[in-house]
Amino acid sequence: MSDPLTQLREELALANRILVRQGVLDAFGHVSVRHPQRPDRFLLARNMAPASVTPSDVLEFDLDGNAVAEPGAKVYLERFIHGEVLRSRQDAGAVVHSHSPSVIPFSVARGVPLRAVSHMGSFLGESTPVFEIRAVAGESSDLLIRDHALGRALARTLGAGPAVLMRGHGVTVLGATLREAVFRAVYTEFNARIQAEALKLGPVTFLTAGEAVASAASNASQIDRAWNVWKAQA
Amino acid sequence: MSDPLTQLREELALANRILVRQGVLDAFGHVSVRHPQRPDRFLLARNMAPASVTPSDVLEFDLDGNAVAEPGAKVYLERFIHGEVLRSRQDAGAVVHSHSPSVIPFSVARGVPLRAVSHMGSFLGESTPVFEIRAVAGESSDLLIRDHALGRALARTLGAGPAVLMRGHGVTVLGATLREAVFRAVYTEFNARIQAEALKLGPVTFLTAGEAVASAASNASQIDRAWNVWKAQA
Amino acid sequence: MSDPLTQLREELALANRILVRQGVLDAFGHVSVRHPQRPDRFLLARNMAPASVTPSDVLEFDLDGNAVAEPGAKVYLERFIHGEVLRSRQDAGAVVHSHSPSVIPFSVARGVPLRAVSHMGSFLGESTPVFEIRAVAGESSDLLIRDHALGRALARTLGAGPAVLMRGHGVTVLGATLREAVFRAVYTEFNARIQAEALKLGPVTFLTAGEAVASAASNASQIDRAWNVWKAQA
Amino acid sequence: MSDPLTQLREELALANRILVRQGVLDAFGHVSVRHPQRPDRFLLARNMAPASVTPSDVLEFDLDGNAVAEPGAKVYLERFIHGEVLRSRQDAGAVVHSHSPSVIPFSVARGVPLRAVSHMGSFLGESTPVFEIRAVAGESSDLLIRDHALGRALARTLGAGPAVLMRGHGVTVLGATLREAVFRAVYTEFNARIQAEALKLGPVTFLTAGEAVASAASNASQIDRAWNVWKAQA
Repeated sequence: MSDPLTQLREELALANRILVRQGVLDAFGHVSVRHPQRPDRFLLARNMAPASVTPSDVLEFDLDGNAVAEPGAKVYLERFIHGEVLRSRQDAGAVVHSHSPSVIPFSVARGVPLRAVSHMGSFLGESTPVFEIRAVAGESSDLLIRDHALGRALARTLGAGPAVLMRGHGVTVLGATLREAVFRAVYTEFNARIQAEALKLGPVTFLTAGEAVASAASNASQIDRAWNVWKAQA
Repeated sequence: MSDPLTQLREELALANRILVRQGVLDAFGHVSVRHPQRPDRFLLARNMAPASVTPSDVLEFDLDGNAVAEPGAKVYLERFIHGEVLRSRQDAGAVVHSHSPSVIPFSVARGVPLRAVSHMGSFLGESTPVFEIRAVAGESSDLLIRDHALGRALARTLGAGPAVLMRGHGVTVLGATLREAVFRAVYTEFNARIQAEALKLGPVTFLTAGEAVASAASNASQIDRAWNVWKAQA
Repeated sequence: MSDPLTQLREELALANRILVRQGVLDAFGHVSVRHPQRPDRFLLARNMAPASVTPSDVLEFDLDGNAVAEPGAKVYLERFIHGEVLRSRQDAGAVVHSHSPSVIPFSVARGVPLRAVSHMGSFLGESTPVFEIRAVAGESSDLLIRDHALGRALARTLGAGPAVLMRGHGVTVLGATLREAVFRAVYTEFNARIQAEALKLGPVTFLTAGEAVASAASNASQIDRAWNVWKAQA
Repeated sequence: MSDPLTQLREELALANRILVRQGVLDAFGHVSVRHPQRPDRFLLARNMAPASVTPSDVLEFDLDGNAVAEPGAKVYLERFIHGEVLRSRQDAGAVVHSHSPSVIPFSVARGVPLRAVSHMGSFLGESTPVFEIRAVAGESSDLLIRDHALGRALARTLGAGPAVLMRGHGVTVLGATLREAVFRAVYTEFNARIQAEALKLGPVTFLTAGEAVASAASNASQIDRAWNVWKAQA
């Protein structure tokens, strides 16, 4: 029997592989989980391709994005996404940042919010905010969340929801648990694909706010089933 | 030589794997078949991911959705789909419920009925009904068919046809046999993909009612060929 | 060293597997080649799934669609496609009939002819005719080419070109050689995908008639390279 | 320890396999790299399918497209693309020519320039030029870059940018290094897919010129990570 932290490192490595296999991550993107004993810490792989992450590549960070036990480690430039979202959202236990291909179009198409159209994407509710980095970093940024200020601005746009699109860049999704964050990341991509196709066909009926809440509650109990299927494939 | 019921359990497990491999089912959805000796019973896997179903996971249900031989078994919440469709449709021998990705857009795009555009989807005829759960369960349901009343309402919307779309959720398809239900589920997805692409190109010529009937009759003799190909791949 | 007919049977079995692997054929469709010594005969598999065809499944047919050496063999219902196209087109050495998924939308979208938009699809020229079976078989046919009269009508619509779309059904493509027919079948699907996407973006520049002729002549020398790549994958 | 030229031949063979695996090349297309010691020479495979290229298939060419050490070798007809781009662009170290499927629609849809919409495609900047071969070769060319004059005309349209679309044909992408050219070829395809989907949704916010420059500079340090992931998959 391994201790909870060791198990979580293994689960985080697996989450990386699952997200690659499901088409959410490619050579880029990352997934973090809050430390099980210390809520002011989180676990995140060193700077590397998600598909290659093993438990020993998982480092411990404080919410400022410092690798506490291995200060000289090569770390992800955008670790501030994880630190600031976990700081501002006490209910968040895990964060996925990706360049999810069907989601990016919704980050750049003006006036077409990503929202729950399939019950599997019900957690998205009636609208997903878009973080326009120009409002904070000006007209010539590299679009990356490369410091605390940008991380905090992203967290403000995220607000109380499960996901925030990043214009011309990608999406950040959170969950109460690592498995919920992974589940939501996969079904954000799924919902985006369905929504885009539906919008091409004609006027679309979306989930009501009430349906979104009720359906998200029902789906919460199904997360482990999906996780186990994806684990077997990864 | 195994008895018919044992063979049917094996075929049902295989149908689950085929539907996953063909992109109709993912971690969710289910397929049932009517009991070969007792038409008031049906076979359905216990609550689990379709890809993992083995013959020993197949349970026997009455049409009310009770697992008759294993009352404490963990069962699918939406087993009422199967019970009520099989109750209302004496001609139905098997039922597939899925979140078929190309079909869902037709469940939410208003005024664009899914219909036969390819001869392989001819069984769909001139229109596929859409079950709007709001009309029965109100504005804040979780979209799931979680009781008898919803199952009966779904069966009423299905009427005498081979398929019913479920708004924001998925589709339920039936067949006289298990293989026919699987065949129709796969080609409902295929037809939806073709129809969506055709509608983006221009005004579309669909099959006439007469063509749909004639073509569906011809295709009925081809089901085993498709089944055997899919079996080899699954 | 095997004789030409034995080699051709092997190549025809391989062509079936290639077309499945390239997404042109699925459980349905078929490919034929004219007999190397007797131009009034052709080779075609017995009625079976393309992926499973072996050299010993290849039968010899006369142009009327009779299996000459094995009169009781189970044969494809639509063998008349092959017989009548080979009869009317002395320049044709092989014929592919498929339900090529990106091509079918062009068979039903009115006023949007499939035509050469990519130099790899240059053989398609400025327009591909669509066979509307209703004009011959009336409003209630099963869309299949189930007799000589329908085969002849299809061949008339084909005319002198390389391909004919079949409304709501699929496409028939020919080549001077088996490899050319396979090459054209694969790139008809490719061109259709490119054309559909381009038409969604804006007004499209197609190949001129002169470009189509010149490009098709250049590509003719590249067929073996594609064949060998596809052979290695099949 | 092998010498730089031997290493480069191995890397070029790998680049071919990577580009096939990533869906940029199929049976056609080619990738070259400038000779590490002689800037007036480049390395390119003999005329063959990219997936099969081994280090021993890599030949040395002068910028006129002559295979210097093996004058009778079978060479790519379109080697002039590589020679003339490398001649006109001293900053280019490698060139990829492909029929990248999501890019071709942008080569034929008038008035819809391919441009940076995702930060991964930021190197594309505000517009990608389209080479209209008709302006040079007239109305009846085969669309191929089959001589020096066409190669020079293509290089002129390319100008100082990273990529040039070729109407109805494909795209040519360059990089300072082989890995950068491969990275750009893969993300040109990615960006095209995102841009096409976004344009179908509504009016699109593209990267500003400043964002494109800043993001491209940031991404330049990430090329090896992507290369290593693709290498593991190839």
